[in-house]
Amino acid sequence: MTKLIDGKQVANDLKVQIASSVKKLIALGITPGIAVILVGDDPASQIYVRNKQRAAEKLGIDSEVIHLPATTSEEKVLAKIAALNANPAIDAILVQSPMPAQIDENRIQSAIVPEKDVDGFHPQNVGALFNNAQDYYPMANTPRGIMTLLNEYMPNLVGKKALVIGRSILVGRPMMAMLNNADATVTLAHRHTTNLEQLIADADVIVVAVGKPHFLKMSDVKADAVVIDVGINRLADGTLVGDVLDDMPDSEQLLTPVPGGVGPMTIATLMQTTVELARQHSTI
Amino acid sequence: MTKLIDGKQVANDLKVQIASSVKKLIALGITPGIAVILVGDDPASQIYVRNKQRAAEKLGIDSEVIHLPATTSEEKVLAKIAALNANPAIDAILVQSPMPAQIDENRIQSAIVPEKDVDGFHPQNVGALFNNAQDYYPMANTPRGIMTLLNEYMPNLVGKKALVIGRSILVGRPMMAMLNNADATVTLAHRHTTNLEQLIADADVIVVAVGKPHFLKMSDVKADAVVIDVGINRLADGTLVGDVLDDMPDSEQLLTPVPGGVGPMTIATLMQTTVELARQHSTI
Repeated sequence: MTKLIDGKQVANDLKVQIASSVKKLIALGITPGIAVILVGDDPASQIYVRNKQRAAEKLGIDSEVIHLPATTSEEKVLAKIAALNANPAIDAILVQSPMPAQIDENRIQSAIVPEKDVDGFHPQNVGALFNNAQDYYPMANTPRGIMTLLNEYMPNLVGKKALVIGRSILVGRPMMAMLNNADATVTLAHRHTTNLEQLIADADVIVVAVGKPHFLKMSDVKADAVVIDVGINRLADGTLVGDVLDDMPDSEQLLTPVPGGVGPMTIATLMQTTVELARQHSTI
Repeated sequence: MTKLIDGKQVANDLKVQIASSVKKLIALGITPGIAVILVGDDPASQIYVRNKQRAAEKLGIDSEVIHLPATTSEEKVLAKIAALNANPAIDAILVQSPMPAQIDENRIQSAIVPEKDVDGFHPQNVGALFNNAQDYYPMANTPRGIMTLLNEYMPNLVGKKALVIGRSILVGRPMMAMLNNADATVTLAHRHTTNLEQLIADADVIVVAVGKPHFLKMSDVKADAVVIDVGINRLADGTLVGDVLDDMPDSEQLLTPVPGGVGPMTIATLMQTTVELARQHSTI
């Protein structure tokens, strides 16, 4: 068995720190607050939102879910966001993706003020990340959670060959920026990449986020590589699998399991960002 | 001699198009206007600013240079930018770099409204570029000019292996984004990169922006590679050279000369962006 990266453990350690930060803030009269907007009845989205709310609750973070019917107009959602932007009890605003077709998700995301943009999607926060700005800004939680994991398992990324496969706005693009900001040499691969095999064979760190079961085989990567599997795919028999096939039973390679790898880190990091935003909004 | 890419010619072709656009806009009562803020008496900066102003003049674009003494306070520069932001005759605001030490250049750049940020430096515009936003936004002119050159000499970048060496906010980072948005597979290399030789040998397109004479040798790149030399270095004897040494007299490789390659494209592209911003600001 390839050595598995324990995302749950690292996420739990992070949560302990967050809970302690929340306690201190509450003692100072500041309760971090997150609002989640959920439009429609997608079952997976409902589970994600419930998990986020539970995590917030456990950590002492105020949370509010605004659940709107699937037929809600874009105007209505924008009005909700405007109210949340103006509400001093709310530090973080999250819009659960995907939205119904009548709603332009980009417009919704950009309507959240950058200071409450807990997902780091606002162009201004994306720009800060890509410019490696030195002041505080929220950044995408999945790649940031991956950076926290890497910090445990491969703390020195300077000069490491990093390969990011998949270039979504949620994961691949910000991941590329974060690895570059950590001084790795990053290649961003995608559906048009012609030399993927060679890139995979050369990389010290690989982040796969393509949404295809068994897209990457551990037998194709280096013996000392770290592989981060962002995929969550449901097979016909109901099993959840990532994008990576672990076909190297006795190797020393490191891999994040699915589930129990990136997933728990994303939620814990979302809470971390919420608390940071609350601190930014306070004058303490 | 390696085949040289004629930046002057492509820049001149672009200028002909721009002049025609400007004429049409003027006929509609819209004169594009650019303001350049120059602080201090750096001789190189003065030359750059003069070149920009001349290019604007030739194309029928209104230009205004605000030349402030080297001792000007940051507050004073910010006040000038606020006035230009509010001035409807000005479509494009450019702050000539470098600024004197008492001025925080980032703060100055971010004070320009995104709608007049002709250099594409504002985090909001950088974010739009990295997210590959589909609506109009200004982007950094040097890498954009390089994309225009590549469009002449290597029009199909899909799946091409692109290597960007140097990761400045001006060139390397936005270059990476533009090549990625054109579906190349991009690697961003920098001072900590450990496998540069291999990356250079593998690449189909190389953009070098490191500011070191003869940093890259044409004998180290592929026979059909295109090399874009962004460097401008002055040798002890006064000669201007790029970052690339052309040691392949009989090759079919393509290379931008210095001078006459990227330089003319940057100024022409700056004018192109100015005209686009004027069109954005009009209601026509």
